[in-house]
Amino acid sequence: MRVVVNTLYKSAISELKERLLEINDLARANDVLEWDQATYMPPGGAEGRARQMATIAKLVHARSSDPALGALLSQLQSHTGAPATDAADSNSDDAALIRVAQRDYDRATRIPTELMGEIANHIGRSYSAWAEARPKNDWATMRPYLEKTLELSRRYAECFPEAAHIADPLIDGSDEGMTVAIIRPIFAELRSFLAPLVQAIAAKPETDASCIFQHFPEAQQWAFGEAMIRDYGYDFNRGRQDKTHHPFMTRFNWGDCRITTRFNEDYLAEGLFATLHEAGHALYEMGIDRNLDGTPLGEGTSAGVHESQSRTWENVVGRSLPVWEHYYPKLQAAFPEQLGKVDLETYYHAINKVQPSLIRVEADEVTYNLHVIIRFELECELLEGTLSIADLPEAWHARYQEYLGVSAPNDTDGVLQDVHWYGGLIGGAFQGYTLGNIMAGQFNAAASQAIPDLADQWRQANFAPLHAWLSENIYRHGRKYTALDFIQRITGGPIQLAPYKEYLTNKYGAIYNL
Amino acid sequence: MRVVVNTLYKSAISELKERLLEINDLARANDVLEWDQATYMPPGGAEGRARQMATIAKLVHARSSDPALGALLSQLQSHTGAPATDAADSNSDDAALIRVAQRDYDRATRIPTELMGEIANHIGRSYSAWAEARPKNDWATMRPYLEKTLELSRRYAECFPEAAHIADPLIDGSDEGMTVAIIRPIFAELRSFLAPLVQAIAAKPETDASCIFQHFPEAQQWAFGEAMIRDYGYDFNRGRQDKTHHPFMTRFNWGDCRITTRFNEDYLAEGLFATLHEAGHALYEMGIDRNLDGTPLGEGTSAGVHESQSRTWENVVGRSLPVWEHYYPKLQAAFPEQLGKVDLETYYHAINKVQPSLIRVEADEVTYNLHVIIRFELECELLEGTLSIADLPEAWHARYQEYLGVSAPNDTDGVLQDVHWYGGLIGGAFQGYTLGNIMAGQFNAAASQAIPDLADQWRQANFAPLHAWLSENIYRHGRKYTALDFIQRITGGPIQLAPYKEYLTNKYGAIYNL
Repeated sequence: MRVVVNTLYKSAISELKERLLEINDLARANDVLEWDQATYMPPGGAEGRARQMATIAKLVHARSSDPALGALLSQLQSHTGAPATDAADSNSDDAALIRVAQRDYDRATRIPTELMGEIANHIGRSYSAWAEARPKNDWATMRPYLEKTLELSRRYAECFPEAAHIADPLIDGSDEGMTVAIIRPIFAELRSFLAPLVQAIAAKPETDASCIFQHFPEAQQWAFGEAMIRDYGYDFNRGRQDKTHHPFMTRFNWGDCRITTRFNEDYLAEGLFATLHEAGHALYEMGIDRNLDGTPLGEGTSAGVHESQSRTWENVVGRSLPVWEHYYPKLQAAFPEQLGKVDLETYYHAINKVQPSLIRVEADEVTYNLHVIIRFELECELLEGTLSIADLPEAWHARYQEYLGVSAPNDTDGVLQDVHWYGGLIGGAFQGYTLGNIMAGQFNAAASQAIPDLADQWRQANFAPLHAWLSENIYRHGRKYTALDFIQRITGGPIQLAPYKEYLTNKYGAIYNL
Repeated sequence: MRVVVNTLYKSAISELKERLLEINDLARANDVLEWDQATYMPPGGAEGRARQMATIAKLVHARSSDPALGALLSQLQSHTGAPATDAADSNSDDAALIRVAQRDYDRATRIPTELMGEIANHIGRSYSAWAEARPKNDWATMRPYLEKTLELSRRYAECFPEAAHIADPLIDGSDEGMTVAIIRPIFAELRSFLAPLVQAIAAKPETDASCIFQHFPEAQQWAFGEAMIRDYGYDFNRGRQDKTHHPFMTRFNWGDCRITTRFNEDYLAEGLFATLHEAGHALYEMGIDRNLDGTPLGEGTSAGVHESQSRTWENVVGRSLPVWEHYYPKLQAAFPEQLGKVDLETYYHAINKVQPSLIRVEADEVTYNLHVIIRFELECELLEGTLSIADLPEAWHARYQEYLGVSAPNDTDGVLQDVHWYGGLIGGAFQGYTLGNIMAGQFNAAASQAIPDLADQWRQANFAPLHAWLSENIYRHGRKYTALDFIQRITGGPIQLAPYKEYLTNKYGAIYNL
């Protein structure tokens, strides 16, 4: 009997893996097309490329929602936990694979195909309209698009009637397991903590950051950033860096995790920290167990955990004093005219200058979270129906005034600022950025306990112990665990703000003499 | 009744186009993956990329040989020539589409899936073995591989029992309509013509080509070549040039036809003429009617016609005296130290130096054909069974001695020289190169008659009239016509050697004072 069960199980799990590998290979091929589109594609290729990508996306969707896949998963579910199979242990790769594949299948099949088509169609047109409307400060054009997007977002969410809050299914799409009930109180607590911190900093003399606003030739910036991420552990045999309008990381397979960056020759921090940020995403993906490659487990588990790593390597490590004690003399050597006479402290303060501003992607480490919290709150209110699209631009300005004390003179830098709502649904788009900061606080506190002399290691550009700890505890598992699972496994408890607050207090207390 | 026929027809042709578009988009996506593999992929990506490409190739093959596609084509064949349909006119796009799709389907289904798998498997291993064995001059390792390749090539050809010669199905795969019966006599005639020409040239003082063997920095080479192909009409909005180990052209869609090149800083001709050659391939693909894009008609019709265009723009135009009357002063300005004191005639003779040599891809315009003829003859003899693989290395050396008066000191530059037999089947691999030269002779003679002052136009870097003539008569039609159709349409007759002989006689008679 055991032998029969085992044989049936083995044939089913091997069919599952075959089906999932095909889906993976098609989806990753599409990622190559997308990377090429952003890096090297000539303008004339746009139309044909869009069509080719749509064809592949259709094939991926058809395969991901194939009823035969659903039947296979049901059959395998009956084996989960059953003795005599590799899925008996719920921590096994096979059990995780069945669980995650089931989740993906449920999400792929829960949304009616017509609604998916309607969304894809609308988002495509909305994105094009936004790309034109944003520079023209043309909110009037975008308003009806956004009203339709909100309606589609609601209809999408309503496909998950079991959700406690209408935003939950949208949040769950990028941050599995996270809900409004979890996020709202922790974001409220974070805001209460940040408001006085930002005020206290504002009462201090303004940091002089002019040293990083000089002319820094691109070639040297490029070389410096690549040398730094090589030290981090970014493996150029398994990746490369190219230039794009918006930096991103993309994983084609275990051996090919690429990053992109952009340079501003008049502002050193833009390119350098984009490189460190994307390298953080890539270290995560490069660290996933090779034997999960090509399966749904072979990628980062959520937007939030991904951001926890990009922000760790960009900010926690990359904007730390010990790291620059090592690298600043090298940076001075690369840019002797610009930085030869600037001391380390001035530079360190410049790259950590806190100042409320209008643009999220340009915000500092502290105020960044307020940009995210504003967007998260507005998303929830729009979905709940307590805020209308018509009132959104004013709500945006009012919230910025209230939380950050600044107000955009237009909608270009207001409600039209980010691509997310115009190139995707409303809901679930932003929380991951700040969840990432909070989780990084918890993960790095645990890492510091496990490796007591982290700062000393960084002072010698020795990142291997931190990298190994993160790989062991997070990276290698891919999607085997959710964000909340990782927090539980690493800290033994739920998501908590305290470590992140302590990190910010220590770092900015020292910088600003608070 | 007409209305019913028309409605049935329309629904069938639209389903056909949809199916073919999906096949096209998948196949072209694979081409993007291949381009990336050759240009920018980090080494670690090789294994995952190979798997992804195999997955897509499998999907392409399954769709290309889907019995439902066959049934649809049968249904549509019954409409071809029928009044009341767009396929009534056999010259219509629809009629051509049905014809070409049927041909592709027949070829895809004629070979049993197991044989296809066996071939793919063997070729993959053979290619890897060759890449190691060639530099080591290790024929012994490759001999059993090549024996297996020959066996598989025969079994492939035997799937087309109606063929008059065993090489015909293999030739037909890249040069539709061409057969041993057509090629053998014309190649024999070409050899009889070339032998005394090469001898006569050899009796003259050796050309001093040292002026192109100096140090030419890559950046200037790059800029010069791109400026020249821009003048040819290569549209950088619909393409780009990158560096690869082996230059190639690839078409992703109408708006994206890319080329690659390689540079040798100590030999000017290598990069420059590779760029001109690949640009010729690209001009052809860029000139195909946009409304054929995404269909099986939307690509060059055969290896031979493709070579006729790459060789026209590389050799007939790109190594002509009038072209260099315009460009040579610019080339001198780009490389004043190297060429400032070298006169045009010396340079022109250097880039057209005829000298029997060992390596096909480095051969001059005249002797190149002898390299091809040798390979074509050996392929036929191997397939016929009149030559064994064991005797191939010696046959290679003997033939080189007889036709070119040279003999390689090893197998590296002998039988192991070209990738074709080690990364593909034996048969059909080489004839296209020389068929291209011959057809270029016929096409360009017709173009010269239609545009009498071609040389004067080239002297002013005005390539638009020739480009327009080629586009009108060849490029725009894609695969609507075969090579033999084009020859018939343009010259009113069959393939003929006379124009090519006349071209060579005039050009090299003048250069070598014959």
